Amino acid sequence: MTDKTPIIKVALIQQKKTADIADNRRRLTEEIIKAAQMGAQLIVNQELHDSLYFCQNEDVETFDLAVELDSSATGVYSQLAKNLGVVIVTSMFERRAAGLYHNTAIVFDSDGSEAGCYRKTHIPDDPGFYEKFYFTPGDLGIKPIETSLGKLGVLVCWDQWYPEAARLMALQGAELLIYPTAIGWQDTDPEDEKQRQREAWTTVQRGHAVANGIPVIAVNRVGHEDDPSGVSDGITFWGSSFIAGPQGEILHKSPDDREETAVVEVDMRRSENVRRWWPFLRDRRIDLYDGLTKRYLD
Amino acid sequence: MTDKTPIIKVALIQQKKTADIADNRRRLTEEIIKAAQMGAQLIVNQELHDSLYFCQNEDVETFDLAVELDSSATGVYSQLAKNLGVVIVTSMFERRAAGLYHNTAIVFDSDGSEAGCYRKTHIPDDPGFYEKFYFTPGDLGIKPIETSLGKLGVLVCWDQWYPEAARLMALQGAELLIYPTAIGWQDTDPEDEKQRQREAWTTVQRGHAVANGIPVIAVNRVGHEDDPSGVSDGITFWGSSFIAGPQGEILHKSPDDREETAVVEVDMRRSENVRRWWPFLRDRRIDLYDGLTKRYLD
Repeated sequence: MTDKTPIIKVALIQQKKTADIADNRRRLTEEIIKAAQMGAQLIVNQELHDSLYFCQNEDVETFDLAVELDSSATGVYSQLAKNLGVVIVTSMFERRAAGLYHNTAIVFDSDGSEAGCYRKTHIPDDPGFYEKFYFTPGDLGIKPIETSLGKLGVLVCWDQWYPEAARLMALQGAELLIYPTAIGWQDTDPEDEKQRQREAWTTVQRGHAVANGIPVIAVNRVGHEDDPSGVSDGITFWGSSFIAGPQGEILHKSPDDREETAVVEVDMRRSENVRRWWPFLRDRRIDLYDGLTKRYLD
Repeated sequence: MTDKTPIIKVALIQQKKTADIADNRRRLTEEIIKAAQMGAQLIVNQELHDSLYFCQNEDVETFDLAVELDSSATGVYSQLAKNLGVVIVTSMFERRAAGLYHNTAIVFDSDGSEAGCYRKTHIPDDPGFYEKFYFTPGDLGIKPIETSLGKLGVLVCWDQWYPEAARLMALQGAELLIYPTAIGWQDTDPEDEKQRQREAWTTVQRGHAVANGIPVIAVNRVGHEDDPSGVSDGITFWGSSFIAGPQGEILHKSPDDREETAVVEVDMRRSENVRRWWPFLRDRRIDLYDGLTKRYLD
């Protein structure tokens, strides 16, 4: 990547979503076109961008929202990538078979071809985020996706809390870490707890940038979505999408309360320089790391 | 730890050092006594606190500074721990045999006994920090040290850049991560680069707190030390010692330009609560982590 594209223009598209799938796709298409017009080469979308975040309750009817990977629902993004000559990172609710669904990121290269896909491997489950009901843990492994812009370390949301996933991407030559995300507050949380949560979310991902000497791109949804079950007050997604450089330095941060399409220049040459000065990969004590493959060691 | 000591009073002692070892020890002893008088139960010291940071050049005479683990040089801290009834984390230049030296943290329990020691496992080497010349990589493994206050995940400086080390401590039940440190700027670095470096150092460690749901204590030296070889302008250690809670939230941060002894209350019950809400350990994909024990995977 260093040779071919020293600077990559990355777009973050942070949006609110409604129950109207067609309208969500139409509005996203508009923003993708706008981002390309702003010069974006790589366009990163939030998690499950075609729908509401539907995991607030467990409802078998919701499986109707899932799409097959090679379908008109994904084809629209392939066509956009080709027409605009951009790489697009999408996030889909994948129907693989009856009773077998994944949370899957598909990456389309700038010629419209499918560069690769990644099935979310770490699946959360806590009140309001009932993802273990909807998504089978990914079985494609944790592997970067090769594109015309370089090797993309595409992971999804809950993966972002796991240094293991980021490190595995870096060890396979990923040049960017990319996290489509849907995370928010319960409105009933006190303000200081809300800020601690958002700051923790930002910090742990900036930490992956530092530990691996590569930039991180996180794109989150924004706005309030009701809980269809009425059990809770719903989730207010906190936006705050960001790009951090290879020292964890914030290059761009989106607002926490409204939509934004931003295009940010990421200088890929900095990773090479940062890793020369801080050669963490050189000194890993792989002779001592066997325990990392265990559940617990106590 | 939760049952016996819900709140631990932790002291950070951030100091400048000179070539006068006896004076360094005398001044540190004063601060340890002061910290105990302020109510500290756990006292954490900076890396190699008895001397200058001697790794700015490679000089065989410097090995004269090394001490045996069971010697008067360590005994003074054992005695202080016993007399004051506090747990003390020390950092020593260990002489294990002729031509075999380590960078070793010894922890003394509140009865003066040696609770355990840890030999720095990740050893840096970059201009001004020629540690591979002085320190053999540790062979005691990455294991918490059991004390009367709980299990301490004691690591040293360069270890702090490695999520692997923090995770291994957490998987063995460490309740706190502790990093005696000596890190600073070259004075010739531009100001924005200095700030990026210090922020990266803070961020990656706060990230370990978040990923593992436990507090982090980092104690750094402060002040300028000349390069004895005259090759460089020396190092200005940036202080900025800090304690972060289990969401990475900063509980205390020391100044970057002067000495400080601070005593901070750390509520250990928060780790239990944070881990219930964000149960990252539950969802680790250990079936996919084999690659972490490899040097590189590309």
